[in-house]
Amino acid sequence: MARNIRVEKLTQTPIEKQEIEIVERKGVGHPDSMADGFAEAVSRALCKEYIKKCGTVLHHNTDQVEVVAGRSHPQYRGGELISPIYVLLVGRATKEFNEIRIPTDTTAVRAARQYLDSTLPDIDVEHNIIIDCKLGSGSTDLQGVFKRGKAPMSNDTSFGVGYAPLSETEQIVYNTERQMVLNFKKDLPAIGTDIKVMGMRKNDKITLTVACAMIGKYIDDLSHYISTKEELRDKICDLAMGYTDREVEVFINTADDEESGSIYLTVTGTSAEMGDDGSVGRGNRCNGLITPNRPMSMEATSGKNPINHVGKLYNLLSNRIANDIAKNVPGIQDVHIRILSQIGKPIDQPLIASAQVIPEEGANMAMIKSESEAIIDQWLADVTKMTEMIANGEIETF
Amino acid sequence: MARNIRVEKLTQTPIEKQEIEIVERKGVGHPDSMADGFAEAVSRALCKEYIKKCGTVLHHNTDQVEVVAGRSHPQYRGGELISPIYVLLVGRATKEFNEIRIPTDTTAVRAARQYLDSTLPDIDVEHNIIIDCKLGSGSTDLQGVFKRGKAPMSNDTSFGVGYAPLSETEQIVYNTERQMVLNFKKDLPAIGTDIKVMGMRKNDKITLTVACAMIGKYIDDLSHYISTKEELRDKICDLAMGYTDREVEVFINTADDEESGSIYLTVTGTSAEMGDDGSVGRGNRCNGLITPNRPMSMEATSGKNPINHVGKLYNLLSNRIANDIAKNVPGIQDVHIRILSQIGKPIDQPLIASAQVIPEEGANMAMIKSESEAIIDQWLADVTKMTEMIANGEIETF
Amino acid sequence: MARNIRVEKLTQTPIEKQEIEIVERKGVGHPDSMADGFAEAVSRALCKEYIKKCGTVLHHNTDQVEVVAGRSHPQYRGGELISPIYVLLVGRATKEFNEIRIPTDTTAVRAARQYLDSTLPDIDVEHNIIIDCKLGSGSTDLQGVFKRGKAPMSNDTSFGVGYAPLSETEQIVYNTERQMVLNFKKDLPAIGTDIKVMGMRKNDKITLTVACAMIGKYIDDLSHYISTKEELRDKICDLAMGYTDREVEVFINTADDEESGSIYLTVTGTSAEMGDDGSVGRGNRCNGLITPNRPMSMEATSGKNPINHVGKLYNLLSNRIANDIAKNVPGIQDVHIRILSQIGKPIDQPLIASAQVIPEEGANMAMIKSESEAIIDQWLADVTKMTEMIANGEIETF
Amino acid sequence: MARNIRVEKLTQTPIEKQEIEIVERKGVGHPDSMADGFAEAVSRALCKEYIKKCGTVLHHNTDQVEVVAGRSHPQYRGGELISPIYVLLVGRATKEFNEIRIPTDTTAVRAARQYLDSTLPDIDVEHNIIIDCKLGSGSTDLQGVFKRGKAPMSNDTSFGVGYAPLSETEQIVYNTERQMVLNFKKDLPAIGTDIKVMGMRKNDKITLTVACAMIGKYIDDLSHYISTKEELRDKICDLAMGYTDREVEVFINTADDEESGSIYLTVTGTSAEMGDDGSVGRGNRCNGLITPNRPMSMEATSGKNPINHVGKLYNLLSNRIANDIAKNVPGIQDVHIRILSQIGKPIDQPLIASAQVIPEEGANMAMIKSESEAIIDQWLADVTKMTEMIANGEIETF
Repeated sequence: MARNIRVEKLTQTPIEKQEIEIVERKGVGHPDSMADGFAEAVSRALCKEYIKKCGTVLHHNTDQVEVVAGRSHPQYRGGELISPIYVLLVGRATKEFNEIRIPTDTTAVRAARQYLDSTLPDIDVEHNIIIDCKLGSGSTDLQGVFKRGKAPMSNDTSFGVGYAPLSETEQIVYNTERQMVLNFKKDLPAIGTDIKVMGMRKNDKITLTVACAMIGKYIDDLSHYISTKEELRDKICDLAMGYTDREVEVFINTADDEESGSIYLTVTGTSAEMGDDGSVGRGNRCNGLITPNRPMSMEATSGKNPINHVGKLYNLLSNRIANDIAKNVPGIQDVHIRILSQIGKPIDQPLIASAQVIPEEGANMAMIKSESEAIIDQWLADVTKMTEMIANGEIETF
Repeated sequence: MARNIRVEKLTQTPIEKQEIEIVERKGVGHPDSMADGFAEAVSRALCKEYIKKCGTVLHHNTDQVEVVAGRSHPQYRGGELISPIYVLLVGRATKEFNEIRIPTDTTAVRAARQYLDSTLPDIDVEHNIIIDCKLGSGSTDLQGVFKRGKAPMSNDTSFGVGYAPLSETEQIVYNTERQMVLNFKKDLPAIGTDIKVMGMRKNDKITLTVACAMIGKYIDDLSHYISTKEELRDKICDLAMGYTDREVEVFINTADDEESGSIYLTVTGTSAEMGDDGSVGRGNRCNGLITPNRPMSMEATSGKNPINHVGKLYNLLSNRIANDIAKNVPGIQDVHIRILSQIGKPIDQPLIASAQVIPEEGANMAMIKSESEAIIDQWLADVTKMTEMIANGEIETF
Repeated sequence: MARNIRVEKLTQTPIEKQEIEIVERKGVGHPDSMADGFAEAVSRALCKEYIKKCGTVLHHNTDQVEVVAGRSHPQYRGGELISPIYVLLVGRATKEFNEIRIPTDTTAVRAARQYLDSTLPDIDVEHNIIIDCKLGSGSTDLQGVFKRGKAPMSNDTSFGVGYAPLSETEQIVYNTERQMVLNFKKDLPAIGTDIKVMGMRKNDKITLTVACAMIGKYIDDLSHYISTKEELRDKICDLAMGYTDREVEVFINTADDEESGSIYLTVTGTSAEMGDDGSVGRGNRCNGLITPNRPMSMEATSGKNPINHVGKLYNLLSNRIANDIAKNVPGIQDVHIRILSQIGKPIDQPLIASAQVIPEEGANMAMIKSESEAIIDQWLADVTKMTEMIANGEIETF
Repeated sequence: MARNIRVEKLTQTPIEKQEIEIVERKGVGHPDSMADGFAEAVSRALCKEYIKKCGTVLHHNTDQVEVVAGRSHPQYRGGELISPIYVLLVGRATKEFNEIRIPTDTTAVRAARQYLDSTLPDIDVEHNIIIDCKLGSGSTDLQGVFKRGKAPMSNDTSFGVGYAPLSETEQIVYNTERQMVLNFKKDLPAIGTDIKVMGMRKNDKITLTVACAMIGKYIDDLSHYISTKEELRDKICDLAMGYTDREVEVFINTADDEESGSIYLTVTGTSAEMGDDGSVGRGNRCNGLITPNRPMSMEATSGKNPINHVGKLYNLLSNRIANDIAKNVPGIQDVHIRILSQIGKPIDQPLIASAQVIPEEGANMAMIKSESEAIIDQWLADVTKMTEMIANGEIETF
């Protein structure tokens, strides 16, 4: 059956030419991102365990993880937690299948601990965090879903969205957080994982407001804290220069009151240690950003099953498609993708797959249409490949 | 100090002229909306209790409410729950202030029960739902915030967005759910509160896909179920005609397999009774819709304190401003508002308040700018009025 | 097969002739008794539901109920709770049997609410208490247990104990609490349900130390509180006179410091509202008393299944047998019963059923032995009658 | 003020001469003992932390620990857990004192993990157990308690009991479990920590019924399991011979059905992995035994604060006193101690401290009285030493 694909020319000021642009990224240690990260780590581990035990991925959704803040007493050169951070791995998973029992909850706990070790190493797993797990049994029967040679049925009437390419501001905001964690921390160990980068472009001036939880044990005193912020500011400015010729201004921890000593100091590098809770699906969209100038979906991507949950699949797919079109089809300034499912219909047959294209001046819109349609059609035909890539952890979800 | 207000002309195909438009609304009994509703009801009740006991609203955020699904055994003419729905009222609230103890948790439980009675009457509070409450103590000191004659300081670097006016599809989607609950249910008592309306406009054809949890005790048998769906479909079609001249097609409960008897039957009118969990901030935006063609914010609006939480205030404010401009400034097709705070700065002095306007052809952009700026400036000057209106429950948040 | 019954003469100072005797009773509103009461109410309701749905009682144990204290702000003529009391109904129950789904959790919640209404009416169910329920699935297969004409197999190697008759002090302690709740409260509505009666007999003088949570809304001021205590003391003295000719001294709320106004005032009549948690099986033994001069078992009786849980059955049975012997066999001062099971053996064939008898001087020990053995043998033969009586709520468990 | 001490001669058949004697011990890995062990480990750790930070022990009671069973899939040579065991450290603790914040919850979690490592090494802390912690704030003000040179006030009207010396059967039951864990496991690594020893003496024959959770990974097959039981039986018989000349019969895992392969196999060595929950205070009394022939108290000893909680102090004290008297005062067969407090009175001034003595024939009762009174008086005078010994972990509580 021919797919319902629609490529439309959009008359719109392209993102780089709009006067005001706002872009946000929450770092991996932000409580909302922590929830996303645990949710997706658990889903991946369940996928692997299901494949190992049953030969196929079974129904699960672990997208209700909650991070409940602890209480801390940060200090220069040290500090300690009063109450641990509490992480509740919650959701639903198939616990038995053809008389095979799947160790869902122990798998989830192990996955969460491994995620903690690899991604949030400054949180001492011994006594600074509690990882609890209460997975319910799923009610949905996904067995019918796996008929050879056929795509699964959509679990819901829902849509995914994506766009490409990233604007300068988007690239800067994304990479600022990434480089802080992956590189700058080598020189500045006090950098925590709870980072929030807010980028605001006003014509040709980009203002970055960065909140970064500093880790007390690596900071000697207030002057050390201040110099750390200064070094960090320089590094971020240098980084931004690599992506833009526009003017860039960087603010770090603007709520600090250095005179009174009220600064952003933590024990573990995340505000989850003191008062800030987190939930899945309330932070970054699946391209790692929050972008009110751009089309977005409300669906939580992390933790959902990659088999038939269109809220996950169509968002990741839309971004892949958008990137693919932006890269391979000539003459495009911006492309927006939306894919809408109808519950109970095959996932490779959406109700609509829509592309909105802002072409470059003089571009051949007919060719853009036909090439874009072909790309969309191919991705939909290959939608189950997405499932594999997600289960293998090849695709980031926040 | 002059406010940082920016009104910009946006070159963009207005919403009604875009080829594809997608709009969604989750009804009040959808698990995500239930979470939103409880969160906001608790916040309102806390506001009142704080004012009664302390003369002013104190710090609280109850935006982490979780709805955990029960298990049910629906049947025609009856059915029963096996395990109750579980609602956890969680977040943070000030429990003591100047030696006054505030009954935060009992207030929260009572507010949730009253909300249940008024909004979700088909859920038997006696044994079909558990309302649990674990409010932590807030860490933020908001005392400094309440200096007479001054606006509070932003609690975060965050933004709000809004737009106006609603498109035809948006009006239809919104009112379909509202009328089902408020009116159609009188004739069709089987209509549950867990409704999801997905609207898709493709040029001049609007497709509404409606999922509606039917309540078993009001349905005699399969043929009664089918006739109920047909009556409902007619009512929705009639309703839609009042908002558009476009062609409208309505699908109801498309996942039903009537032959096998697999239909959308429930005991309580919500899927939270069987397998579907809900969280705050993952459903409707504060204008009651999810609109990927439109600018959106990720912030959960429900349950946040209305004093200095810009994630709540700026979203509600942006929508008010957008509506005000759309209504009162001549020559506007669409208007988008974004307001960005910087943590620690007064909430009436945002880093930027931006309006993007798609004018009608030949409109006077200079006049639009000056009038829009005046409206924005006035609303920001009056921002604390929003706080009062929210505390009084005059503003919907989802 | 002949039962293993052993009746032994015990050379021991009978209880009334020992110099020092200590007896305690925790009232129905004591947090530990609350836990017992909820546990047993839930078990009874499950028994009824199982019989209704499946024709027989299925496996369950609800003996892990926890009562977690709230926080309160008591005052004369009023007061309010800050945080509700939290009751967690926890344990294990069979949720499905021959494809019949049993509404275990909703049944449990309803039973708990009804128990609250009937037994603890001063706790406002609307917002002063949260009843949560997390019953796990049982792992034990009890199907094999129900072979017609045969007794079930013991679930454990365990023992029950009992004794009779009650001493004077035991009768006074037991009835003091009972009369306070059932009668004295009519004249003195301030009497709460959280009562602790500690009786100490030193030769011929009985000292009763009574702690009674007073309900603020029925007390006008300190002098009213003091006069209430005085009236109560008089009533208890009168009551005690009905059971003994010994001297009786009564102390009420000895921790009060009337001068500073530090008294035992509550909102709901139980200390569970402020700081005192409760657990099943840590309060009264199944005869309603704690008696260190007497043989006791550690087993929690409340909430266990009455089919094959010998920790429940043998304790209740031992008390019945002891009472029966004390009443019907002449020449007995005190009788102690102990019954010991071995896991996997029929419950009517204990490893040992032992009676220790302190005969009156000159009693015919041979006749005592044979009559006692007959009584024990009969009760063991009829052990499944106990199950029925328990399920019907005819037997108190704490 | 002279203490209220009473030493009484008891006419009673001494324990060794009673016909029937029942004695039970639950091993350290029994779910109830696990709860006791965690509770006491946490209390000890809090004591140390309080002393370190504040110079003195502050108010806490951690005696509500719950062990909620996991689900497991045991197998020969392996096996795995499906759902982890869940341990909830709950109770109350002082979190702030003179502006010093005490890391109560992190301390509790760390203590529980260390206890696990040292005592239950077969439970893999990585993913087979969840240690959660929700300590409330205590309501009791214990500051007044610590006036120099004075004993604290009783927190409750309560009593403690003890007796000495241990009978043969008691010694055998106690040491069977201890030796299985500490010694026999070296040769028989399959021995788990969840052991229940039930001893029944009928005149001169002692029957030991031992339930021992075997660890699958150390067992190759059924014949290996059977031979392990046989070796264990021999070791226990040998052990018992060291304490008695009576006939001893040993049964191990009597519920096994070897033919059908239904045996007592586990992954971790405790039934908490599959269906058996545990609570504080429902297992062994503070001398490590459950003894229905002997006076017992219902009070949970583990986890209570050792400052003024008479339910803890008086039980431990009664046992110390009884042992001391039995060892040092000549002419005693059995001695029973009971100490009764009255709330609000100094703990070194109980309402009564009673000793009941069964003297040997011809013993000098006057001398026994005076020497016993002196021992009791001395221990009461030194009661605060008990507090230190408990905080230092020098005294077992279950």
